[in-house]
Amino acid sequence: MLLNVIKIGGNVIDDPQKLDKFLLDFSLLPGNKILIHGGGKIATKIAEKLGIETQMVEGRRITDKPMLEVVTMVYGGLVNKQIVASLQSKNCNAIGLTGADGGAILAKKRPVKSIDYGFVGDIEKVNSGFIENLLENGVAPVFAPLTYDIDGNMLNTNADTQASAIAVGMSQNFEVNLVYCFEKKGVLLDAEDDDSVISEIRPDYYEELKASGVIFAGMIPKLDNAFAALEKGVKKVTICQAEQLIEAVKNGNAGTAILR
Amino acid sequence: MLLNVIKIGGNVIDDPQKLDKFLLDFSLLPGNKILIHGGGKIATKIAEKLGIETQMVEGRRITDKPMLEVVTMVYGGLVNKQIVASLQSKNCNAIGLTGADGGAILAKKRPVKSIDYGFVGDIEKVNSGFIENLLENGVAPVFAPLTYDIDGNMLNTNADTQASAIAVGMSQNFEVNLVYCFEKKGVLLDAEDDDSVISEIRPDYYEELKASGVIFAGMIPKLDNAFAALEKGVKKVTICQAEQLIEAVKNGNAGTAILR
Repeated sequence: MLLNVIKIGGNVIDDPQKLDKFLLDFSLLPGNKILIHGGGKIATKIAEKLGIETQMVEGRRITDKPMLEVVTMVYGGLVNKQIVASLQSKNCNAIGLTGADGGAILAKKRPVKSIDYGFVGDIEKVNSGFIENLLENGVAPVFAPLTYDIDGNMLNTNADTQASAIAVGMSQNFEVNLVYCFEKKGVLLDAEDDDSVISEIRPDYYEELKASGVIFAGMIPKLDNAFAALEKGVKKVTICQAEQLIEAVKNGNAGTAILR
Repeated sequence: MLLNVIKIGGNVIDDPQKLDKFLLDFSLLPGNKILIHGGGKIATKIAEKLGIETQMVEGRRITDKPMLEVVTMVYGGLVNKQIVASLQSKNCNAIGLTGADGGAILAKKRPVKSIDYGFVGDIEKVNSGFIENLLENGVAPVFAPLTYDIDGNMLNTNADTQASAIAVGMSQNFEVNLVYCFEKKGVLLDAEDDDSVISEIRPDYYEELKASGVIFAGMIPKLDNAFAALEKGVKKVTICQAEQLIEAVKNGNAGTAILR
């Protein structure tokens, strides 16, 4: 059976019109589907107003206890429930979840090495049976980027990684299509030319693109992640623009397809 | 089949030690169970820090758009997810829900009469099939006091009323025991004497207690609500102290039992 696992990034979350259009498109996708949403900038804004400082190390947010409370309420409450209520109004029976709900995604607090990231989760286990039961009942799970550990802590979790872990976890019983929606139309041959989308990347070509410097910086962990998901049973990974969701999923003719 | 629907008030939510003890007791209850939690004072505190004024009319919070965002994130995110993660650590497979999730509780924005309460929900329908499916899978639903309407708005909802609506909605397929946990040991014969708990109230006795002035003020809507739930199929309503949960549910020898 087919399952679409869709990840939507923070830039769309921050734009009410774009988000509404995206959720309408998501609601129109037939069959089994799961949404994972990023956080957006609103957590940083609310933390600021509450007098909580956002600490970043090497581009990553440090999640101390007060910041954990902010992301738990903003991602798990405000953003997640607004998405769910909006999907319900679009006739999509969504359910908002964090990893803690139904024991959906168990994680472990990241061990402190050179940097203490604080309450950040490294995923240990996806409870695919629980998620499958929701899908069987026609419910579309909507995940906030949060997990939990066995000690009862909520944990801040990278949404890309969470999407990939869910896709892998569900691939035993489903043919999983993992779609990363971001601001570009796909992986670009020329970073300056938004229309230079590479339609398909397989491992050999990926090595070529990396060697020639076409793919670099932030795109490398994204694609490494995609190939890792394919190794672990995910059928196809697509990287596309949020506006192209329906084309990418239904017709497979938008964005960049990552294939083994 | 038996189902315990437990409502826990804001005063316990605000006290981490009391809450932890209460959640341990809840985790130990055997069989089907649902928790509905109130909000506590933390929403007011966070609203204050965010510069959002709390407006009260006749003891009730007015929920304008900014306040709706605060209660959505605080009740639906912070409080709800901390409870769920804590229950998971106590081996209770909880799932945090608002009315929007799975279309669990549909409401209607309260019509404006003399007072505009804002985004406040009057419950229309409980999706008992969805909740029953969770229970069948050994999952314990934990509801935040929030519902939604068909236009995709989240709505602030009274937790007592929500508990009663869920209890009534589930009573077609379950023998429902509705338990209101609050700060007193039950309904008191003498408001000054915490040990003067009335063990059982039936309709005739209720009329007597009201006529003699033993039951007055805030206790009247609570009990009216309890009798209404009994009229609509709930088997038993108990009003007790949070600390007495296990005694009240397992042995039935704590708090005040409201019976037809």
